[in-house]
Amino acid sequence: MTDIPSTMTASVLRGIKDVVLEKRPVPVPAADEVLIKVLSVGVCGSDVHYYAHGRIGDYVVESPLILGHELSGMIVAVGDDVDPARIGRRVAVEPQRPCRRCDYCRSGAYNLCPDMEFYATPPIDGAFCEYVVIQDDFAYDVPDEISDHAAALMEPLSVGIAAAQKGGIKVGDTVLIAGGGPIGVIAAQVARAFGAVDVVVADIDAGRRELVSRYGVRVVDPMTQSTLDLKAHVFIDASGATPAILNGIRSVRSGGTVVLVGSADEIPLSVPEVAMRELNVTGIFRYTGTWPIARALLESGAVEVDSLVTHVYGIEQAEEALSGEGAPGGLKRIVLPGVARAEVTEVAGAAHD
Amino acid sequence: MTDIPSTMTASVLRGIKDVVLEKRPVPVPAADEVLIKVLSVGVCGSDVHYYAHGRIGDYVVESPLILGHELSGMIVAVGDDVDPARIGRRVAVEPQRPCRRCDYCRSGAYNLCPDMEFYATPPIDGAFCEYVVIQDDFAYDVPDEISDHAAALMEPLSVGIAAAQKGGIKVGDTVLIAGGGPIGVIAAQVARAFGAVDVVVADIDAGRRELVSRYGVRVVDPMTQSTLDLKAHVFIDASGATPAILNGIRSVRSGGTVVLVGSADEIPLSVPEVAMRELNVTGIFRYTGTWPIARALLESGAVEVDSLVTHVYGIEQAEEALSGEGAPGGLKRIVLPGVARAEVTEVAGAAHD
Amino acid sequence: MTDIPSTMTASVLRGIKDVVLEKRPVPVPAADEVLIKVLSVGVCGSDVHYYAHGRIGDYVVESPLILGHELSGMIVAVGDDVDPARIGRRVAVEPQRPCRRCDYCRSGAYNLCPDMEFYATPPIDGAFCEYVVIQDDFAYDVPDEISDHAAALMEPLSVGIAAAQKGGIKVGDTVLIAGGGPIGVIAAQVARAFGAVDVVVADIDAGRRELVSRYGVRVVDPMTQSTLDLKAHVFIDASGATPAILNGIRSVRSGGTVVLVGSADEIPLSVPEVAMRELNVTGIFRYTGTWPIARALLESGAVEVDSLVTHVYGIEQAEEALSGEGAPGGLKRIVLPGVARAEVTEVAGAAHD
Amino acid sequence: MTDIPSTMTASVLRGIKDVVLEKRPVPVPAADEVLIKVLSVGVCGSDVHYYAHGRIGDYVVESPLILGHELSGMIVAVGDDVDPARIGRRVAVEPQRPCRRCDYCRSGAYNLCPDMEFYATPPIDGAFCEYVVIQDDFAYDVPDEISDHAAALMEPLSVGIAAAQKGGIKVGDTVLIAGGGPIGVIAAQVARAFGAVDVVVADIDAGRRELVSRYGVRVVDPMTQSTLDLKAHVFIDASGATPAILNGIRSVRSGGTVVLVGSADEIPLSVPEVAMRELNVTGIFRYTGTWPIARALLESGAVEVDSLVTHVYGIEQAEEALSGEGAPGGLKRIVLPGVARAEVTEVAGAAHD
Repeated sequence: MTDIPSTMTASVLRGIKDVVLEKRPVPVPAADEVLIKVLSVGVCGSDVHYYAHGRIGDYVVESPLILGHELSGMIVAVGDDVDPARIGRRVAVEPQRPCRRCDYCRSGAYNLCPDMEFYATPPIDGAFCEYVVIQDDFAYDVPDEISDHAAALMEPLSVGIAAAQKGGIKVGDTVLIAGGGPIGVIAAQVARAFGAVDVVVADIDAGRRELVSRYGVRVVDPMTQSTLDLKAHVFIDASGATPAILNGIRSVRSGGTVVLVGSADEIPLSVPEVAMRELNVTGIFRYTGTWPIARALLESGAVEVDSLVTHVYGIEQAEEALSGEGAPGGLKRIVLPGVARAEVTEVAGAAHD
Repeated sequence: MTDIPSTMTASVLRGIKDVVLEKRPVPVPAADEVLIKVLSVGVCGSDVHYYAHGRIGDYVVESPLILGHELSGMIVAVGDDVDPARIGRRVAVEPQRPCRRCDYCRSGAYNLCPDMEFYATPPIDGAFCEYVVIQDDFAYDVPDEISDHAAALMEPLSVGIAAAQKGGIKVGDTVLIAGGGPIGVIAAQVARAFGAVDVVVADIDAGRRELVSRYGVRVVDPMTQSTLDLKAHVFIDASGATPAILNGIRSVRSGGTVVLVGSADEIPLSVPEVAMRELNVTGIFRYTGTWPIARALLESGAVEVDSLVTHVYGIEQAEEALSGEGAPGGLKRIVLPGVARAEVTEVAGAAHD
Repeated sequence: MTDIPSTMTASVLRGIKDVVLEKRPVPVPAADEVLIKVLSVGVCGSDVHYYAHGRIGDYVVESPLILGHELSGMIVAVGDDVDPARIGRRVAVEPQRPCRRCDYCRSGAYNLCPDMEFYATPPIDGAFCEYVVIQDDFAYDVPDEISDHAAALMEPLSVGIAAAQKGGIKVGDTVLIAGGGPIGVIAAQVARAFGAVDVVVADIDAGRRELVSRYGVRVVDPMTQSTLDLKAHVFIDASGATPAILNGIRSVRSGGTVVLVGSADEIPLSVPEVAMRELNVTGIFRYTGTWPIARALLESGAVEVDSLVTHVYGIEQAEEALSGEGAPGGLKRIVLPGVARAEVTEVAGAAHD
Repeated sequence: MTDIPSTMTASVLRGIKDVVLEKRPVPVPAADEVLIKVLSVGVCGSDVHYYAHGRIGDYVVESPLILGHELSGMIVAVGDDVDPARIGRRVAVEPQRPCRRCDYCRSGAYNLCPDMEFYATPPIDGAFCEYVVIQDDFAYDVPDEISDHAAALMEPLSVGIAAAQKGGIKVGDTVLIAGGGPIGVIAAQVARAFGAVDVVVADIDAGRRELVSRYGVRVVDPMTQSTLDLKAHVFIDASGATPAILNGIRSVRSGGTVVLVGSADEIPLSVPEVAMRELNVTGIFRYTGTWPIARALLESGAVEVDSLVTHVYGIEQAEEALSGEGAPGGLKRIVLPGVARAEVTEVAGAAHD
């Protein structure tokens, strides 16, 4: 532990499209925490949204904020109550700190904790920096066969798992997913891992459809192909587009479930449709208890995420990663906090073979 | 059985606000059916809607239709496969005939059967007539302590039970109900029977609130009293009013459930509200397996419906019952198919003591 | 807080049937704890078992132990992280301290936490003493209309609630309960509160049956009355007697649930009975999240427990309370840690009117 | 349909180990039935048990009985209410006829129907004959890529699916299965299809273990390898052996589920183990709604059953198939009712590569 510096480099969002590098003190782990040297951080749509708009709904960036909440790293120090044997372990981080005391936490729904502290959500800093702390039990050991990037991407994978759980996807189900971005591709793979036998991803972009089709699921162009006869058991919206949501609702069979994941605003919902067909319209807010499942799905090969990574950046290029300049058509952009500058070339993932 | 006539009097809807009395043949029970002399029929909002508009959504009155689907009666004949000992039994009728063969029927969700034949839903006739047939197992014996009217009202009671089941109301829950009409009053009583400890009914009408308050639940005026702090586990809309639904959605705690029962059209639904608070927005279409529960709730006194009956009509007054003329402020109007004309005075129910 | 003494009187179990009074230091609340002056403590069968046998299964009394885990009290001091406004509040105590970090705790099943510290379970001290500490969120405010004794008895009431939850008791169910002791009487009331319409308690003791019948449920003598035709949805064993359990299993309908609460040893279980009738045989180990429900059931009057209290003792009489000498036929014995000696007369509870 | 004969050959069990060929009339389909020319019939352990003992529990062979209930065939005629387009279709048969009217049937649990008529269960004949009838909706179309044998084996596959459903197997689970016979091998594959990531089959027979291991799951020898540290979420007993069941119960984690499928008699069940670890001990009796899932699992390749077939017999060799003579070490024996005698050589299935 002697080689832990006292300061580190962090990429800080100061305002809309205003990102600077700053020196920050390396955090000191509390008794129940571990200190993690960050290895890989995925760029999420919410990071991009904070960068571009300075807010997401009621969450407003009012003071400088470190973005990034999809991360893997190496434990380099531990608090007094943590087993020192964990030092040196490579871990995936579940980037949240629930209160553990409210009714939601005590009943297992800690994602709904009103006092949640979540990485990269104002005013809680995230992981576009060299070191972070997290409570011991939210840092999950990662086996060697899972890469640093894949370990970081257990976070969006957890979103897909939570969506599948909320949808109650069962063996034999038909599942429709709107949106062929990273969440859509992950949700499609997860749906298959949950036993869905017909998984269909709808996207209006031909390039996206081509890419998604590489993951062994069906794709449709919602502009030309109807999904109304699909009679899906579950529809997951990962598009955030109102027409896609409305089409998805109509494509679900009576008694089926609609899971809203994307960040749409307001949709016109037909009450007779919901009532007379007994639809369940719901959504997810993050996840609980998903990291062990994510690890198992990656280990077994049921889900593969390395191929989602299309661009890699160093910490000095964090703004470039957020703005997405020079990365058209990419799926997942990654920031390496321990690297100053990376060669931002498209990574040849499995999806691009 | 010798005294069953060959023809009967029926009140027939021929078109919008066009009701006539007709002579119809008394139906002959099929092998698995019972023939029922109708004793009491409740007037439902859907009956009124067909009368006033000639349609409900996709269901259009294209040929003469007998309305009425909330009914009790006496078994007067049985089909070949039915135990003749049932003749003479007073019964409550579950007014639907599912196919029993489709996936929905076989999995217990027969209310979603695409081939359902439901009383008083075009083109299936209902019970504003002297005799009806129903399959044996959809006619439920009624003990003496349950009145003819209460037995008929097991149908709206079943709606309340289905709503409580869909909402997953549990012991200790807080439940908000919008709308203090018959369904609202019933749903409130059912919620209490399911163990809800705080049941609140919102209605903008002071008279309705006064009436509902007699059933031992709290009432609020949504125009002046906020329910946003209620943090209800379950919200049941029995109002069909968009502002009431939107207010109800906001009044449900994170992770809670919204059950749409009323016949609203389209509401603007906030996707972030549903997703970030993990709400479950659903609805009910009729019911399955609720009559035995309805009977148990009436027998135990957990629910009381006789006091809902405010006006009683004979078969010749069926149109008056449908139009509601002369029955302002009433809750439940009843038609007696075996009586030509009843004194249409307000009945002094328990709720009016 | 100036009047909190530094030492207190405690009733300590040193070995089998070896109870002494000792002076012990008053505990100091940790940052997240409250210090409680104990008002009322119920004597549980497990307390009696430790007293008589020095062990329960793998839990062995190897060093002096303070018994008692059914308690109410008054908050007299709080830790640094607790709102001081809680001082002076009367509370019911959920007498357990889960780790809040393991998979069980994080998923809402904290009763299965392998690192649980539970009152009066070796080596964790209980409440037969003047002061105890508990984490803030496990001390529940009690309204004035709930007595000290009833607040203490929220603990066995929680057992009844957990049994009903595990059994999945629904509105309209038939429930059989074996054993008319305190847990049986409570479980019967809870079953009714969950909506069961036919609740039957079986006990071989005529006195117990007479007493139980005062709570408005049916009673049967299993020696002379068969329950095989009951076709119960749920059977709860609160007797611990093998014949009662076997009879209960046979009395449950196909697809029904058996909840084992009593402390029986080993039963011969028929595999064909379980498989061919698809029974669910399960049990409960304490409870999670039940105190708010217990409070609601007491407040609404759905459950009444004051009448269970038949004998009250002072702290110097704790051994008498444990041995039950002089309290034949009683239901619930209570120890008042703040009182030296109480007049141990049978309390005239509602059940004894 | 002109070529349907009036009589057929049937293999009839007249008493213990007394099987004869008889001429029987070809059944005539009722209005809602189809007539099926049987293509392939699996030999089940229950067939063998009736053959060897003349009874299974309360089911006694009191009059001549045709065995066989795992079957595929071709529709050759239909009843009046069935679409004639089904003639010529190859189908898998769900060999049961529930009443469709009782509470169990109407609520979706038709396997518990007290009036069930099930193939090859006294006094209902089975499928060791050339033609059978079944209600239209219990004959499922089979795509070309599923063989006759595999279609027949959708029946034991349905047992495995029902076990997985009852166990609530979820993505990421650890599942222990006792018994490496056909049901064990199928259950193991199904567990994986339900998302279990660690599936362990315990069998005391080395040959069985070797065979099971070909299906990509772990195997253990319970005589030498402990499974107590497995902390399985679900244990499925397909062995019927008391020591295996007791070991399985101890190998399940707290809160886990034990599904009894095998035909054991009586086991000594530890009540403290069930209660203090909140285990769920349950079992299955056949299945409901599993054929579409079975078909989907076979189509997707998630489950493979052709390799289970090790011996094939003609109708004249049915007794040989039942006695298992000359088929040591085999897994699944098949009878071809349309073939007089087959070459009973071991079939080279995938499991024997």
